[in-house]
Amino acid sequence: MKIETLIDQINKKKSFLCVGLDTDLEKIPNHLLKEEDPIFSFNKAIIDATQEFCVAYKPNIAFYEAYGLNGWKSLEKTINYLNLNYPEQFTIADAKRGDIGNTSTRYAKAFFEELAFDSITIVPYMGRDSVEPFLEFTDKHTILLALTSNQGAFDFQTKKVNEKELYKEVLSVSKSYKNSENLMYVVGATKAEYLRDIREIIPDSFLLVPGVGAQGGNLQEVCNYGLNSNVGLLVNSSRGIIYASTEEDFAHKAALKAKEMQIQMAEELKKLY
Amino acid sequence: MKIETLIDQINKKKSFLCVGLDTDLEKIPNHLLKEEDPIFSFNKAIIDATQEFCVAYKPNIAFYEAYGLNGWKSLEKTINYLNLNYPEQFTIADAKRGDIGNTSTRYAKAFFEELAFDSITIVPYMGRDSVEPFLEFTDKHTILLALTSNQGAFDFQTKKVNEKELYKEVLSVSKSYKNSENLMYVVGATKAEYLRDIREIIPDSFLLVPGVGAQGGNLQEVCNYGLNSNVGLLVNSSRGIIYASTEEDFAHKAALKAKEMQIQMAEELKKLY
Repeated sequence: MKIETLIDQINKKKSFLCVGLDTDLEKIPNHLLKEEDPIFSFNKAIIDATQEFCVAYKPNIAFYEAYGLNGWKSLEKTINYLNLNYPEQFTIADAKRGDIGNTSTRYAKAFFEELAFDSITIVPYMGRDSVEPFLEFTDKHTILLALTSNQGAFDFQTKKVNEKELYKEVLSVSKSYKNSENLMYVVGATKAEYLRDIREIIPDSFLLVPGVGAQGGNLQEVCNYGLNSNVGLLVNSSRGIIYASTEEDFAHKAALKAKEMQIQMAEELKKLY
Repeated sequence: MKIETLIDQINKKKSFLCVGLDTDLEKIPNHLLKEEDPIFSFNKAIIDATQEFCVAYKPNIAFYEAYGLNGWKSLEKTINYLNLNYPEQFTIADAKRGDIGNTSTRYAKAFFEELAFDSITIVPYMGRDSVEPFLEFTDKHTILLALTSNQGAFDFQTKKVNEKELYKEVLSVSKSYKNSENLMYVVGATKAEYLRDIREIIPDSFLLVPGVGAQGGNLQEVCNYGLNSNVGLLVNSSRGIIYASTEEDFAHKAALKAKEMQIQMAEELKKLY
């Protein structure tokens, strides 16, 4: 998907919400467990109910891998369902991959070709030749981890490298990568105050912001520092939406939560124009 | 597998060779392509032929993911074949995973329980709470990327953090993680001269060393700086062994290459005692 299409969708729906599909057999409603593929049934219902309020879906690949072959099948059905029925949705494989050149190319093929995702999350630790193989797919988007929402981010990401924090070094250095115009970045909502500095380094890039809701991040703060003239934000919520209810009304309750966020986002977008 | 078992195997076989299973349909012998599962057929033949000369196998997960469901099936068959027929082999899922706590737990389940690997490679970028979920599996081993064999390692890993290089900070900080005695580290053979400093920080840990052979690393140099009194090294070779021939004799040729390395390793081990 072209970035312009994503921006059009955001403006049309007045939403920059991404729904995280962290689908867990231990958390989905009991009545779904008798279905042939409970994970896909859950995802399908969540997608149908929430799609009018969001512009992106982000399956967290670990949750599918944990169920082995069956999990992989559920993931494949989910992305195919999205691409067939809601091609206007931006799809993110939250895979946090990255390896030496020829291996990264394999991961890129897995997620961009086999599964036809629009984008994938990537870890920058191994540097340029681990990231550029993803950027070679110029009709896709590569989302680099910069500053993550967890406590462990303070172990290395915020430590000073060349007198600036490692995550800032990641932002600066990655701008020199080939096809870097197709980069987006992960910045955790729990660290919204860092967004001001981040926007000085990458004013134009889209940011994928997890951590609003269950992890404690605040939407308004994220918007204050993170919005740019092209919106430039995708704010993710996973558990807060998809597990809003564990009863038969789960999809309806998820839609209400998504709508609630969409309304807040519409307010924030008004400030832009 | 307990670390003592691995050390016993190394002493018994006089080898610390790990064979990397980077199995690629475009590189395996043509005659295998007519088999029902060419990737598994190739791996099985390579394993049967090389197992007497090595102590570990390391499937590179990207190569399997690239083939979607079929790739995942081939991976499952490969690890099951190893665990059933050669339980004395140490198995490494070269997956380079890592995510926030509950997600890392999912990846750990995928590779330690669903697929029953002995160990997995992990990226340290997200810090403590992304690594400790793997370390909770105390009968398994978590192999943290420290200094990788690729050129991109110089983008961030070798940059100075608190007056020492980031990879050294990773080594130091990770020693404070819970159950850190089950950590091993990846150090690329192409950077053998760094091993002296590394051994000062982690004298006792096992190192997984890729990059000997095709990537240009030198075994003797790696041993000079990297061996410790418990050996402490697993040296990986992938392409140099498994693609030694693309003809019908591929497994035999792979065995010859593995044996060649085993003989060199036996020489290095002599210096230890």
